[in-house]
Amino acid sequence: MGDGNGRRVVAGIDIGGTKTLAVALDASGTVIASERAATPTDGGDGIVATAVDTLTALAGHLEIDAGTFDVVGVGIPGRVRPADGSVTHAVNLGLGGGVVAVGPQIEDALGVPTFVENDVNAAALGAAALLSPGTPADLAYISVGTGVAAGLILDGRLRRGYHGVGGEIGHLCVDPGGPRCACGRIGCLEAVASGAAIARRWPGDGAPAAADLFAAAAAGVPGAVAVRDSVCAHLAAAVVHLVLTVDVARVVFGGGVAEAGEALVTGIRRALEEQAKASPWLRSLELDRLVTVLAPGTPVGAIGAGLAARDRRA
Amino acid sequence: MGDGNGRRVVAGIDIGGTKTLAVALDASGTVIASERAATPTDGGDGIVATAVDTLTALAGHLEIDAGTFDVVGVGIPGRVRPADGSVTHAVNLGLGGGVVAVGPQIEDALGVPTFVENDVNAAALGAAALLSPGTPADLAYISVGTGVAAGLILDGRLRRGYHGVGGEIGHLCVDPGGPRCACGRIGCLEAVASGAAIARRWPGDGAPAAADLFAAAAAGVPGAVAVRDSVCAHLAAAVVHLVLTVDVARVVFGGGVAEAGEALVTGIRRALEEQAKASPWLRSLELDRLVTVLAPGTPVGAIGAGLAARDRRA
Repeated sequence: MGDGNGRRVVAGIDIGGTKTLAVALDASGTVIASERAATPTDGGDGIVATAVDTLTALAGHLEIDAGTFDVVGVGIPGRVRPADGSVTHAVNLGLGGGVVAVGPQIEDALGVPTFVENDVNAAALGAAALLSPGTPADLAYISVGTGVAAGLILDGRLRRGYHGVGGEIGHLCVDPGGPRCACGRIGCLEAVASGAAIARRWPGDGAPAAADLFAAAAAGVPGAVAVRDSVCAHLAAAVVHLVLTVDVARVVFGGGVAEAGEALVTGIRRALEEQAKASPWLRSLELDRLVTVLAPGTPVGAIGAGLAARDRRA
Repeated sequence: MGDGNGRRVVAGIDIGGTKTLAVALDASGTVIASERAATPTDGGDGIVATAVDTLTALAGHLEIDAGTFDVVGVGIPGRVRPADGSVTHAVNLGLGGGVVAVGPQIEDALGVPTFVENDVNAAALGAAALLSPGTPADLAYISVGTGVAAGLILDGRLRRGYHGVGGEIGHLCVDPGGPRCACGRIGCLEAVASGAAIARRWPGDGAPAAADLFAAAAAGVPGAVAVRDSVCAHLAAAVVHLVLTVDVARVVFGGGVAEAGEALVTGIRRALEEQAKASPWLRSLELDRLVTVLAPGTPVGAIGAGLAARDRRA
């Protein structure tokens, strides 16, 4: 199976809360086509049907049949059981606690082996492939979107964990005096530094709240400066937290809020320096040098899902 | 090389702030002899000399020469460079920022290949061997002694990390309104829930502060109950933290404070239930079932140092 040039083509698809994005990868892992659609809100069947349609349109761009993809990788939020390709707790997709057999359903529809991975884990694998091509990566990928979560690649291997909740740092308590999180606890990172938290703390007028916040802060609007600095301080604390726990070589920010790019990274680096001021030991780790951000629009989730599927099939 | 029965004997030695403890392990990893001495406070040369004397006395118990040990493993606090067997930042041993070539010096004195590991990492390996014999372990070992630190065994492998600070959870900020830590920052876990912090929060009269605290709390002394519950709540928060970051299958407590045994674990389990009360999601992880404590006096550090050395030599 392959494209018109006889190469094997891998498809990766990232099913997010608002959009479904698919990419086709050639043998070197380069994106050779992409396709997107709005993610429907009418439940598991609609989500799977949209994924199948998107993959079919993707194949169309290459003038091949979707059934000739070598393998399909799916990234999806929620608790994924990689063994059977099902997902539960995909709250951001409106699926509640139900079990959706995403992998088997796509596999049946297209006749292509399909592997499913948690979306943030898939993005971490994608970031690792982009940033450390050909070498074992060691990084935390922190997705700051509607929620906050991390994917960990340790000594070159994805760390999924025992319960499948590895990297759920959005629910660490970082502000004991802070607001209540959707999870029920007080002061979770996600409750003070996610895209949703920013929209609450800096209600804008149409533009994505994070973009509006960083623009207003750059212009010196005092309220915006305070919220921006608070968000960056909490994300910097998450970096400290990850390094003092798993001691990753690199921390990469992605997700909607990270589209602020260098403005976000600069704010986080400044906060890291501030937090290390009192501690020569912490300062010696030079944490500000570890932090990077993905270029806006990089489809790491879809790329990582595809690469993970290729590796698991091998 | 072997003992009187021709078996290969591995020696492991745990160099702690107050005592140096060595064990001899047979081929199955069982402790067949042990020896201890007070750790001297006069610098690196004295510490190495005491280690050599202790290993020599250990060999004497088996009626063998220390030079016939198959391999020696050393566990020592501080930042260890496993590649060359040196240690820096061994603050608890009074060595300040100096570099001590512990491994090469012991190897020269005894003529036996010697490998050095951070003491908490060694203890984590020892705990893994004792709790999951023959299978790949997945656990965090949390040492609560003078300080607090964790060793991580993930998918059967020790996670050392990029800077060698993996598991330094004692310096996570858990109490932003709390006291200043020796590291310079405010509210570190170590500043509120270590043996040293307990001694400050519950000044006793001779007995180890932690033992005194748990006894007084069990007897219902109100001040003691409050300090005990606060310590257990902070250690429970560390368990939540570890699970939401690396999602380990098990959390094992050891170190001086953990000699309180079931009283400590019961307090931590109660605090975990309390912290999960507001969150069905956190409750579903049943974190209280993950927590265990080592039997008092189990020489996990020396055992783990020996086993790690055996594996690294192989």
